[in-house]
Amino acid sequence: MTFVTFDLAAYLESRRLGVERALERAARWTAAELPDAEAEAVRHGVMSGGKRLRPVLCVTAYTACGGAESEAAYDLAASLELIHAYSLMHDDLPCMDDAELRRGRPTTHRVHGGGVTMRAGAALIPAAALQAFRASRALGRTAREAAGIAHVLMEASGGSGMVGGQWLDLEGEGRALRALELDRLHRLKTGALLTASLQMGAMAAAAPEPTTAALIEYGRAVGLAFQVADDILDATSDAASLGKNPSDAELDKSTYVTLHGLEEARVRAQALVDRAVGALEGAGTDVPALAALADFVVSRSH
Amino acid sequence: MTFVTFDLAAYLESRRLGVERALERAARWTAAELPDAEAEAVRHGVMSGGKRLRPVLCVTAYTACGGAESEAAYDLAASLELIHAYSLMHDDLPCMDDAELRRGRPTTHRVHGGGVTMRAGAALIPAAALQAFRASRALGRTAREAAGIAHVLMEASGGSGMVGGQWLDLEGEGRALRALELDRLHRLKTGALLTASLQMGAMAAAAPEPTTAALIEYGRAVGLAFQVADDILDATSDAASLGKNPSDAELDKSTYVTLHGLEEARVRAQALVDRAVGALEGAGTDVPALAALADFVVSRSH
Repeated sequence: MTFVTFDLAAYLESRRLGVERALERAARWTAAELPDAEAEAVRHGVMSGGKRLRPVLCVTAYTACGGAESEAAYDLAASLELIHAYSLMHDDLPCMDDAELRRGRPTTHRVHGGGVTMRAGAALIPAAALQAFRASRALGRTAREAAGIAHVLMEASGGSGMVGGQWLDLEGEGRALRALELDRLHRLKTGALLTASLQMGAMAAAAPEPTTAALIEYGRAVGLAFQVADDILDATSDAASLGKNPSDAELDKSTYVTLHGLEEARVRAQALVDRAVGALEGAGTDVPALAALADFVVSRSH
Repeated sequence: MTFVTFDLAAYLESRRLGVERALERAARWTAAELPDAEAEAVRHGVMSGGKRLRPVLCVTAYTACGGAESEAAYDLAASLELIHAYSLMHDDLPCMDDAELRRGRPTTHRVHGGGVTMRAGAALIPAAALQAFRASRALGRTAREAAGIAHVLMEASGGSGMVGGQWLDLEGEGRALRALELDRLHRLKTGALLTASLQMGAMAAAAPEPTTAALIEYGRAVGLAFQVADDILDATSDAASLGKNPSDAELDKSTYVTLHGLEEARVRAQALVDRAVGALEGAGTDVPALAALADFVVSRSH
């Protein structure tokens, strides 16, 4: 394991604040000219707290590849969180999980109603595409490069990315998934957007191909490690302490723990983190923040 | 009024068939690698019949500006229908209109469930963005131009376009809208995507700026005329003969007929059609299909 002296908590918090400011801007742009109730629903769904892991990964990859922190860099990063926010707003709706709380706050539809929330969520998708393109242009990328960056975001958001994973997840409820099925589900459901975060950051900094490839490899491994760690946390904590809705195991879903057992799941999470950090080292992009983030993913599940 | 000898019905039908084939391709791309049930929901929502007015307008504008009909032209056009299909799938959901039938068929959620339908609809948004970009590239546009075309589609789809109009519509229920409010609602709700259809077709053919501007003007006027005509139809037919859900007047929504009366609404619809055709004539883009389409919009409400 890498020995980390890097102050990850301070790093995450300072980046998170930049993301929050960018999301405030994004919520204003998305809800411009809308009736108050709908604008508030957009704001409620977007300004929902959380770690902002995807945009932080994006900004970290961008600066790791030589980009300078700026409003535009955070605007690019925030486009990923708009997609994540839409997915949570839709997940919580009565026709899906019917969740009352999300991170201890009432869910958007509990405050603003199901119809408005569904629409507000859907409106975030084109808003994210436009924002990824515009922010990339503001960072000096050509129209072709900016279109490529927005393209990565849309690929990660749709049926061959996040939504595809959500579908596999629904389909897998109540039956035992094989190991490869579970990997594929999570590679799409959470991995696609996490990997896009790193890829978009690298592309926005016009990083050379091997660096971009290493960041993608890091993203895939950390994304999966994150999910394994989540399953371990689910299995070893009670729902109340996590502030979450019923755990996946309670919902009769396959998890890395139900499939492999707790110890084997821990071994897998660590192996994935090692692979992630190894990919960066191989490409000479071993920035402390990314190594520390990978370690953090596993350490929180110990 | 323009005297039209053009065989509009035959024109629409041949273009509609090209659109249907493109939508078959699009449904396959969007649902590739998905579980069968979800792929079927995408297909159900997309292959739902209808006039395919938006893609037909797009192909018509494209050929009016010198483009040749091709698979890629129809693929571009179909991207607009993916957005339209998603909006109908979401509109029909229990948290919105709770509709059982759409064009005489069971709605997607009645067959495939609300959660799957909501996700399938949302998956069509990134799919449409990707498809608009790729098809534009296949039509010979540069990456910058193709990004501009996808940009127009995303602008028309979001909070400052179609979704914004849907919100104004929700907000306007149960109160009397002023004339300008009603215009704004429909300019966004249906007009944004109709106008984008023409603009995207012109941009895909690399049309000169005055031609594109005239097609946009045509789209705005025809879009509004279409809505006025719809309100006239709603007021003069019974719901059963239209195969529709409760009319807007029954839902206590403002319509052009409740606001202006039947006769004044007819005068307005005709004035809008004249403006639409006049814009094309002024730019020397007075293709028979577009003039005939504008006339058709009003004639069906007589």
